[in-house]
Amino acid sequence: MAEQMNEYFALASRPEGTPALEHFTVKKEELNMPEDGQLLVKTLYVSVDPYMRGRMKDAKSYAAPYAIGEPITGGSIGRVLHSRVDGFAEGDIVAGGWGWQRYGIIDGKSCRRIDPELAPITTALGVLGMTGLTAYFGTLRIGNPQPGETLVVSGAGGAVGMIVGQIGKIKGARVIGISGSDEKNRYLKEELGFDEVINYKTDQPLAEALERACPDGIDVYFDNVGGDITDAVIPLLNRNARIPLCGQISLYNQEKPELGPRILPMLLTRTVLLKGFLVGDYASEQEEGLRELGQWVREGRLQYRENIIDGFDNIPEAFIGLFSGENLGKQLVRVAED
Amino acid sequence: MAEQMNEYFALASRPEGTPALEHFTVKKEELNMPEDGQLLVKTLYVSVDPYMRGRMKDAKSYAAPYAIGEPITGGSIGRVLHSRVDGFAEGDIVAGGWGWQRYGIIDGKSCRRIDPELAPITTALGVLGMTGLTAYFGTLRIGNPQPGETLVVSGAGGAVGMIVGQIGKIKGARVIGISGSDEKNRYLKEELGFDEVINYKTDQPLAEALERACPDGIDVYFDNVGGDITDAVIPLLNRNARIPLCGQISLYNQEKPELGPRILPMLLTRTVLLKGFLVGDYASEQEEGLRELGQWVREGRLQYRENIIDGFDNIPEAFIGLFSGENLGKQLVRVAED
Repeated sequence: MAEQMNEYFALASRPEGTPALEHFTVKKEELNMPEDGQLLVKTLYVSVDPYMRGRMKDAKSYAAPYAIGEPITGGSIGRVLHSRVDGFAEGDIVAGGWGWQRYGIIDGKSCRRIDPELAPITTALGVLGMTGLTAYFGTLRIGNPQPGETLVVSGAGGAVGMIVGQIGKIKGARVIGISGSDEKNRYLKEELGFDEVINYKTDQPLAEALERACPDGIDVYFDNVGGDITDAVIPLLNRNARIPLCGQISLYNQEKPELGPRILPMLLTRTVLLKGFLVGDYASEQEEGLRELGQWVREGRLQYRENIIDGFDNIPEAFIGLFSGENLGKQLVRVAED
Repeated sequence: MAEQMNEYFALASRPEGTPALEHFTVKKEELNMPEDGQLLVKTLYVSVDPYMRGRMKDAKSYAAPYAIGEPITGGSIGRVLHSRVDGFAEGDIVAGGWGWQRYGIIDGKSCRRIDPELAPITTALGVLGMTGLTAYFGTLRIGNPQPGETLVVSGAGGAVGMIVGQIGKIKGARVIGISGSDEKNRYLKEELGFDEVINYKTDQPLAEALERACPDGIDVYFDNVGGDITDAVIPLLNRNARIPLCGQISLYNQEKPELGPRILPMLLTRTVLLKGFLVGDYASEQEEGLRELGQWVREGRLQYRENIIDGFDNIPEAFIGLFSGENLGKQLVRVAED
């Protein structure tokens, strides 16, 4: 093992605007053996997620920016090659945060073991991982949709959005999804049971399309997108509406903040609750969330989609594709055969 | 009594932009006797409040718009002239919502009796009324300032703002007030113990003045004002900051919403909680709020200021003055001698 090399992706430079391949570079380093309390893992799958764009900026945020030349961290799944942690053994499948690397040397406390018998291991990065938990906590702890209420989700065809809509249906809400593709929308409506779908690119003016789809106004707006789409939603909010603020993907690639309509007067007169959140804020409830999500998956009430691209070298391309809205559901990259 | 006439102010037309005297008109009507369950009251004081501007627009909001030609309702204090309600007697002092009228015929359930022995009766419209409760619930139920945290309040020299800052101090927070007048700011700092004060008209650029005053960032932002002032505050919010959204007075007189910087990306990355609220949302806790506010007033920990203009005819002028920031503390109009 000791002579083996690791490869990882690092930022070559900080993207301005939309990230491109030139902003990423592969680095090689000698692969060390794990120390006491550590695992050496071989990466099987890595996750690419919109929030990672934020960490590519050198700006105040909830997480430190990625350093130039250092591994881009994020959700990964791997097989343990060598364990120096009690309770983990060679061959175990683990999920952790070592990111865009062929191998990871990770702390035993920073990962969790995945049982391949319970569900496909890739779900640990999606519906039964950070993605599912993000949808779960934002929808239930902030949005709290009630039977008969109207829930609108932007980015509805993305990994988080399609779970949000399904949880809304499980809770008895009327669910409207906004995405940028008729193909996604067909899937949301026909396969997942969304009540209405809107294509923000073609159903224009969006404000009117929303008004038709939401005759009783909007009680919960799960926002993944921001920008013009959110501008169209806010005037339709009902008194005491809730906004789980999860993402603003339409704005991530802007170097300078653009102007938009002032929203606070409307949030005031409708006495809206808005909460920015991170899945990590609910770490103490993670077990409960995974248990309930797992049950819904087993019962067939919660479906998921994964879009898997092959090959370590294609990680940056898969990431960049998130911003053109290509992915239906969770975007993953397979780095090595299972 | 039956031959007596009532006078009230009504909207003559809906103001566009800043309200002016021409938008108000005095109407006369014959004064009826109260029916069973009603009181006839003679108005002593009326309250003028920024939120009333919203009800002058013909727009979707938490309360129906004032109808043209109908009495402008709002907080009032009066003496009972005739009671047909068990438990109320002639001579009682009551607070209710009959508004800008010389007399009110009111439902016994829609008012509360004021004990003139406990505090000056005017406080029932201010620190021990809707104004105090607005500050109390917004600060404590949404803002929840902790010892050592930084609380910023805009409109700090207004009726609500100066109570918010004092509650912040009672709870051990560092309190920064923003107002538009050095005179108000002197009062806030020297008399009420605010830690820092900023004059948004002269302490420019405001963002830099705020940064100097808030070296540890901002944990609670109680917003009465909106617009440019709020734009300067938001980039300084800390992780998990809270925004009780109480007013947007800087924007109330705009006919068309203006553009401003998009704030959701910052509310997301700092996982901010923002909540628009009305004092009526906490009706079930009103007694508790009044009890604690009353105790703080008696202990000298909570001071209040009232700015009283004399004469029924001057009500519209007193209201219009709110928008030029003239009032220090609660703005009232004395309609009749006590």
